Amino acid sequence: MSAYHAIQWIDHKLRLLDQRKLPLEVTYLDYEDYRAVATAIREMVVRGAPAIGITAGYGMVLAAQQSQSEAVSGLRADLDAAAAVLCAARPTASNLFYAVDRALKRAADSRLATPEALRKAVLEEAHAIFETECQANLNIGRNALPLVPDDATFIHHCNTGPLATGEYGTALRVIIAAHEAGKRVHAYVDETRPRLQGARLTAWELKQLGIPHTVIVDSAAAHIMRTRGVDLCVVGCDRVAANGDTANKIGTYALALAAHIHGVPFYVVGPTSTIDRAIASGDEIKIEERPAQEVTHVRTCQIAPDDTQVANIAFDVTPAQYITAIITERGVAYPPYKESLAALFA
Amino acid sequence: MSAYHAIQWIDHKLRLLDQRKLPLEVTYLDYEDYRAVATAIREMVVRGAPAIGITAGYGMVLAAQQSQSEAVSGLRADLDAAAAVLCAARPTASNLFYAVDRALKRAADSRLATPEALRKAVLEEAHAIFETECQANLNIGRNALPLVPDDATFIHHCNTGPLATGEYGTALRVIIAAHEAGKRVHAYVDETRPRLQGARLTAWELKQLGIPHTVIVDSAAAHIMRTRGVDLCVVGCDRVAANGDTANKIGTYALALAAHIHGVPFYVVGPTSTIDRAIASGDEIKIEERPAQEVTHVRTCQIAPDDTQVANIAFDVTPAQYITAIITERGVAYPPYKESLAALFA
Repeated sequence: MSAYHAIQWIDHKLRLLDQRKLPLEVTYLDYEDYRAVATAIREMVVRGAPAIGITAGYGMVLAAQQSQSEAVSGLRADLDAAAAVLCAARPTASNLFYAVDRALKRAADSRLATPEALRKAVLEEAHAIFETECQANLNIGRNALPLVPDDATFIHHCNTGPLATGEYGTALRVIIAAHEAGKRVHAYVDETRPRLQGARLTAWELKQLGIPHTVIVDSAAAHIMRTRGVDLCVVGCDRVAANGDTANKIGTYALALAAHIHGVPFYVVGPTSTIDRAIASGDEIKIEERPAQEVTHVRTCQIAPDDTQVANIAFDVTPAQYITAIITERGVAYPPYKESLAALFA
Repeated sequence: MSAYHAIQWIDHKLRLLDQRKLPLEVTYLDYEDYRAVATAIREMVVRGAPAIGITAGYGMVLAAQQSQSEAVSGLRADLDAAAAVLCAARPTASNLFYAVDRALKRAADSRLATPEALRKAVLEEAHAIFETECQANLNIGRNALPLVPDDATFIHHCNTGPLATGEYGTALRVIIAAHEAGKRVHAYVDETRPRLQGARLTAWELKQLGIPHTVIVDSAAAHIMRTRGVDLCVVGCDRVAANGDTANKIGTYALALAAHIHGVPFYVVGPTSTIDRAIASGDEIKIEERPAQEVTHVRTCQIAPDDTQVANIAFDVTPAQYITAIITERGVAYPPYKESLAALFA
């Protein structure tokens, strides 16, 4: 368990570590209103597909608490409304929809006869989602270990540590697990423009954990592969299609192409909750575009001329052909992914 | 000629547009001391290989003006000392050494019998270097034009416009020339971390010129190629080896790999003064590493934890195999470059 906590449920409130302020400040925000939670997800107080899912689960708990309805049916209607608000917060991560869906399904249980029983059930479900993610992350680390050399130089993109996942991490968990297992690891940390999750968050997490690392600008990764020797790339995922195509933070695709040309293994790492078997390929994944200001400004510093046109594409899709394997809590899937991913659910 | 001027020689002084302040402020700095010019080059008041060369030429003029020597031999010794200071300012761009060398060669002319004649000759040489670059840039644009479709979507990395080259531009000149020739152009502008020459300078220049453009983070270029259709990439060069291997701003190599995989033509653009025939391949090019603070801070905003280890590699080398053609003022060179580049000098 990490020494800091991205998401906590304390005294009927949701507490989030404000990741926008890292690494300069460690501050927490408390939430009692699910609408404020949706805003927090949109504004990236919390980010990372698994962490968004966990947060949305507790958002549903807050919605249940907030509901004034004295009938179970009215409470369920209020939860439906809250689900729509939470799901609209960000469009790409499947965990958000998965978590909200789990809460709704639990609430739909006909055995829940009173609002109080229903509220309790939704809270249990939110805790269960969190617990599921934690267990998944630990198993991911265990499954990944045989793929990591004893002396391993990684490139890691974006942030996939405890901050992004609730407690243990996905792609970063691979690095952490290798370090804990006594392997000698060094991680090149892509800074991950525009929101700088690598420079701000991953570097901060690796520092807390005492794991050697070096921050690079994203566009240097290919040069690092060519000149310094890289053993493997690890990235998270926001949504994986049935054929293995993977949506993840913008820049993942460019990194995969560079890894492909240099023969560096490229691993996508995530819980099976991120696999969306309802979509056949990455072509069906909706890609979020975010405000221009995230590119034209860094914190309060303006870097581009006023009114510059920007394409701030938050994610890209890496076709399965560039992915060496997909590491999940249920096992490691290799190409062809249509079969190997389906086998994980068998 | 552009409406703004990166480099001007006015009233025995060198005037530089302070490119560190763009796009927020257009301010000029005047120099009377060659040592301050070396500092300006190192601190990137002026940057871009051709512009650095032109600036260094005038730095030599200032050194000649500053010399107290009343003998030609003493003045030559002072110029040698100044040459060493200027050449130490930045290690990668060959234009710096080329320009300083031209000034020294001119000063070595045995017909220069008085310090005054020698000073005048060095000034003429500096003007000639500037004029040579301007002519080269115009010819580059002319030579590139047949390679640009009538409806052209570009990706451009770093800054290679009038700011980087004195007056007209190299890779950006290709875009400007196509626009001036009535072609419909749109340029995706890589922001170019860490110094953001694309977001700060190229976007500013294209705005002055009224050329449609969209700023993207560097790591989005591969995704743009995959999803939006890109006709060609154009990049500048800081040093080209005899075999065509090209050192340019960090990120050029990653862009070349993405272009290679997507079948997008990848053009290196620069004057023949950037071609260093003394080195057989890119392996011999010294790559500058710059201070960590350029990555950990954007202007005054800190983005990474205190004391984060950073590899701030300013340039990379793109192997010739990923370069479709090298566009120069003397013509367009195609693979194999050893022969085609040599032919440009024949």
